Amino acid sequence: MLTLINTNFSIPKFTHHITTMSYPTTVVTPPSVDEVDIVIPTIRNLDFLEQWRPFFQPYHLIIVQDSDPSINIRVPEGYDYELYNRNDIERILGPKASCISFKDGACRCFGFLVSKKKYIFTIDDDCFVAKDPSGQEINALAQHIHNLSTPSTPFFFNTLYDPYREGADFVRGYPFSLREGVTTAISHGLWLNIPDYDAPTQLVKPRERNTRYVDAVMTIPKGTLFPMCAMNLAFNRELIGPAMYFGLFGDGHPIGRYDDMWAGWCAKVTCDHLGLGVKTGLPYLSHSKASNPFVNLKKEFKGLFWQEDMIPFFQNVTLLKECTTAQECYLELSKLAKEKLVPIDSYFVKLCDAMVTWIDAWNELNPPADGAAAVRVEPFKLK
Amino acid sequence: MLTLINTNFSIPKFTHHITTMSYPTTVVTPPSVDEVDIVIPTIRNLDFLEQWRPFFQPYHLIIVQDSDPSINIRVPEGYDYELYNRNDIERILGPKASCISFKDGACRCFGFLVSKKKYIFTIDDDCFVAKDPSGQEINALAQHIHNLSTPSTPFFFNTLYDPYREGADFVRGYPFSLREGVTTAISHGLWLNIPDYDAPTQLVKPRERNTRYVDAVMTIPKGTLFPMCAMNLAFNRELIGPAMYFGLFGDGHPIGRYDDMWAGWCAKVTCDHLGLGVKTGLPYLSHSKASNPFVNLKKEFKGLFWQEDMIPFFQNVTLLKECTTAQECYLELSKLAKEKLVPIDSYFVKLCDAMVTWIDAWNELNPPADGAAAVRVEPFKLK
Repeated sequence: MLTLINTNFSIPKFTHHITTMSYPTTVVTPPSVDEVDIVIPTIRNLDFLEQWRPFFQPYHLIIVQDSDPSINIRVPEGYDYELYNRNDIERILGPKASCISFKDGACRCFGFLVSKKKYIFTIDDDCFVAKDPSGQEINALAQHIHNLSTPSTPFFFNTLYDPYREGADFVRGYPFSLREGVTTAISHGLWLNIPDYDAPTQLVKPRERNTRYVDAVMTIPKGTLFPMCAMNLAFNRELIGPAMYFGLFGDGHPIGRYDDMWAGWCAKVTCDHLGLGVKTGLPYLSHSKASNPFVNLKKEFKGLFWQEDMIPFFQNVTLLKECTTAQECYLELSKLAKEKLVPIDSYFVKLCDAMVTWIDAWNELNPPADGAAAVRVEPFKLK
Repeated sequence: MLTLINTNFSIPKFTHHITTMSYPTTVVTPPSVDEVDIVIPTIRNLDFLEQWRPFFQPYHLIIVQDSDPSINIRVPEGYDYELYNRNDIERILGPKASCISFKDGACRCFGFLVSKKKYIFTIDDDCFVAKDPSGQEINALAQHIHNLSTPSTPFFFNTLYDPYREGADFVRGYPFSLREGVTTAISHGLWLNIPDYDAPTQLVKPRERNTRYVDAVMTIPKGTLFPMCAMNLAFNRELIGPAMYFGLFGDGHPIGRYDDMWAGWCAKVTCDHLGLGVKTGLPYLSHSKASNPFVNLKKEFKGLFWQEDMIPFFQNVTLLKECTTAQECYLELSKLAKEKLVPIDSYFVKLCDAMVTWIDAWNELNPPADGAAAVRVEPFKLK
């Protein structure tokens, strides 16, 4: 085999000139309308959808109204949508409606429950279309579904970022047995303009804006946690939906603004256990509105302390190898969280019980015949 | 504390317009000449230094000549350098010279041994100055030392990349106890134009060029290995120098082109154990010459199989907590590698023995009084 060396092989010409590079706009094909629901939690008229019309109009919207049910939310004409207010949630879930938060973005997870699609894209109503450096408007939805439909590489780091992207590949030294990658479950997008800062950082840096467009998608390695923000997020509902519970936050609870963080920690631990991938990076959107840092501080206050204990819990937790679906992982996580986090505050009793109620509601609305429940994934084992 | 809410707090004005962004050129200050040596392994005249003159000329070069000692290597005028050929290496190290490879980029580590500086920047002689998207020439050396002199964040992922960079910070949900970060030991830079591919990928994609400038520096998380390429690499010699051994590769050995990979796996495991950080991303340089893929395949051949076992070894290895210097870690790693890797091939006996010889040579040339040996680092413990 090694004797077949052709020493006349012509290697590409090289140059000593300084390299410059252009910004090729990566073309991603929009996904089928049968595969995606867009979930939007809101308390106001959805005029922001006007700007997204070229990208969102073909898709079905699930709107979760988090304000007084008697108020009418205006949705721009031409959109196909279903809208749920608190009365609808109570009617559909009955006593299990207790697991859906009031007056907090956390209510969005009700939309995940009632969707019947493979993919969810969820976005906040103060997020607008961003442009890439070539001036092209970014189709965030298409980029997310592209991220979800190409593999992830959680077991070894690729220094040229996403090896499946056009113009990139695995670099020298990347094990060949890992180059097939694993199925991607979560795509976490980023924000230009107003970054997703906590209240202390908002207070310290009131004028900081994110203007850096980082042209990368990357897999978050196995065993590494990240702060998952729900402003610009997509996931494979069939694979990880049951672990995408946004918990009990906001009205009637001692903490807010940790709904997506909680969901992110639970979902990442579940993905790591099941051998599923989590990506972050592109697509960007433009986050327009900095929320009031004083109000945020009030909501976050306890979380700023509690996260110091919650994160080590998630970093060290090990799920039983018998857990082979997101549902099973999530119930196990609820049990373990109850053991470890209740000593911090009795609030965690309610949260962990609500995790079980959520799985009950999930299984009720997504019976196995639908294919959305009990998707079994063989945990990936590196040699 | 929470009663002091001023509801008149003026939050920054927001806009519904599409966000566009510019590419600010990040200004990094060149490091002191007393702190850095530039190490270059070569077999030819160093004309490539002409192009680097605006950035490199003030610094001291350590050139390791990997060709026939009777050949004179030409170094452009005005550079301050020391040059070592094989005869010099034998004279300086005596019998310990056996740990320095012949006819392989691996010989560069001799330069790390004889340097007395805090930082090493090592570069290949087929690498040229790249430009950032604003058209500015990139000072790779300055960016590396900037990376090394700002902290790393190996314990939790920050979705906006390097939180210490201008215009960035830690995002919501990032634990405050981890925001001090840890000391950075390694800065791994990237390559535009010819990417660092293995022979099979070169054969399959002979025309692929890297044109994507990803404007990010990031920490590789603790517990995650990466393929470290030595074309464009810097490190803190005092902290991690002893683990930056490039092994026995090339002439007289059954494998080549794995010198930097081996060093990278050893160094990453050592950094993880000692609580030191490893960054990758910026700076880019322009890699001009694709080496012959058939020749590369011959060199890499065994490595393509062996890496399937070597990487799981490094992924699973645990160093004794008594190891608190890079030297101690490295000797321990040599012992463990001998136990686990010798069954693959008897070559690993020689490699693991050479690791011990390397540490002997390091300690001889870097006695503790110089501050370069036995830098003790307290392993970082997350709560």
